[in-house]
Amino acid sequence: MDARRKVELFLERPLRRGRASAKHKGTLIIIGGHEDRSGEKKILRAVADRLGDDGKIVVCTVASAEPESLWEQYESAFRAIGVPHVFRLDVDSREEACSPRAMRILDGATGVFFTGGDQLKITSQLGDTPMYSRVQEIYEAGGVIAGTSAGASAMSETMLVANNGEASYRIKSALLMAPGLGFAQDMLIDQHFAERGRMARLIGAVTQSPRVLGVGIDEDTAIIVEHNRSFRVLGVGAVYVVDGSTSSYSNIGEEDSDRTLSSFGLTVHMMSQGDRFDLETRTPFAHPADSMEQEEEKPRGTGTDE
Amino acid sequence: MDARRKVELFLERPLRRGRASAKHKGTLIIIGGHEDRSGEKKILRAVADRLGDDGKIVVCTVASAEPESLWEQYESAFRAIGVPHVFRLDVDSREEACSPRAMRILDGATGVFFTGGDQLKITSQLGDTPMYSRVQEIYEAGGVIAGTSAGASAMSETMLVANNGEASYRIKSALLMAPGLGFAQDMLIDQHFAERGRMARLIGAVTQSPRVLGVGIDEDTAIIVEHNRSFRVLGVGAVYVVDGSTSSYSNIGEEDSDRTLSSFGLTVHMMSQGDRFDLETRTPFAHPADSMEQEEEKPRGTGTDE
Repeated sequence: MDARRKVELFLERPLRRGRASAKHKGTLIIIGGHEDRSGEKKILRAVADRLGDDGKIVVCTVASAEPESLWEQYESAFRAIGVPHVFRLDVDSREEACSPRAMRILDGATGVFFTGGDQLKITSQLGDTPMYSRVQEIYEAGGVIAGTSAGASAMSETMLVANNGEASYRIKSALLMAPGLGFAQDMLIDQHFAERGRMARLIGAVTQSPRVLGVGIDEDTAIIVEHNRSFRVLGVGAVYVVDGSTSSYSNIGEEDSDRTLSSFGLTVHMMSQGDRFDLETRTPFAHPADSMEQEEEKPRGTGTDE
Repeated sequence: MDARRKVELFLERPLRRGRASAKHKGTLIIIGGHEDRSGEKKILRAVADRLGDDGKIVVCTVASAEPESLWEQYESAFRAIGVPHVFRLDVDSREEACSPRAMRILDGATGVFFTGGDQLKITSQLGDTPMYSRVQEIYEAGGVIAGTSAGASAMSETMLVANNGEASYRIKSALLMAPGLGFAQDMLIDQHFAERGRMARLIGAVTQSPRVLGVGIDEDTAIIVEHNRSFRVLGVGAVYVVDGSTSSYSNIGEEDSDRTLSSFGLTVHMMSQGDRFDLETRTPFAHPADSMEQEEEKPRGTGTDE
């Protein structure tokens, strides 16, 4: 389809997640930041493996203040792994996210990769644009949507935006959130998790709304979410799940907002490579770390081919 | 009693915690480090308030590499609060911890305060010496044993010694522990908790032995443990309790020790000022933050008077 026509179509009928025909055929690869880009590249390989035989990945650097150098790193990494088509898409405005150029770059893509930077730049410039509809379309067709660091946070329904991981957690801090792109349904993702000591803010977010599952991802570590039903852990670090369904008490609605948060009775799982988490039942399942390596080594051909 | 005689007595019959006649009459004030020493001094006041009318506190700087400047800070802080007798005890060797001089300085003390530094210096130089017996005696007589940072860790039965809070948690890291002074029974204390992102290592420690309760304390925050039955939170930060009794699975005994830890089904409580925790039933109770302030303002006279 002509790129201009595609823009018009998406402006007319945006692919919003909530619509009846929305599908979860694709894979999300959500990375805690600082994934290996020059060595074994285990996580980027997992992205590449799911692009299909004639795969095309579009690296979206919209979040970054240094898009050039990031793009160079990802381009050479994906090319080194053997991805046939590696493209870059940087957008500086919502106008660009509505442009036929963006449609042309995303044409035939079987994967989109969001780099780190500022998650609000991703959501503010892409939200509800034809480019967002196109990314949604790629996902629904069975493609891979990946994001690292800010790109990981932006996958959430509601995302954390304040960076106060170092300090004790005040009740008012729990409100420093914004709507994300919504690919990771019912989840709230945090990244650089152990490295930046972010348990307090994840507990704060989950306490505020235990409907969402808190998922904290360490650096060079990822969750691979299949069909929004379950995820598996890949990489060197840990993934922390904070489940507020067992929560017995919090002071979040009751006290002076300068007070430090109290939140009792949360269930926490610390997961490592191979482990699987069922998002429907909120249950973790243990698997040996090398089971993941073996599975990842199998050839795959699940990309979209539109 | 003559100091030399006291040393002989304690060498003959050390006051070890496990003996049948051991009592828990005293109070432990366990601080996450960087408590306010120049402003309102809320936590140091809580120590002072429990020393009794003619209270005597001994500041033990054994952990520190800069004992002089620390001593000056605590001396002026405790004097400013109005503690009548403020003494310093620095020991550089086990020999000194067995000296009549140490006994003389601790004579009539109703409180002992362990500063920050290296917790292994506290335990290695004090463990099972007459000085340790004397501190135990002060505690059993109803006195206050306080510790901040390394001094807090040393209160634990088993204490964490590795400082890898920044990284993902490997199974083998969970073994970097040493026996502590044991005042905080069935507890494992970690400090500078949110500030140094130490949830992973606390989960690791608790996973290894869910018999002990993991207690992570933020800076300028303390737990006040009465008779080893319950504690309350005081200060600006949070206290995290990791309870492994609900634990459903961990890979700690099963895998290559270089693997990242998996630990499922932990119960976590985030507590703030005023909240109380029952150590017998492992249950948190919510209280308004200002209930603590009001209680702390009441005059007290519970020190020892031997």
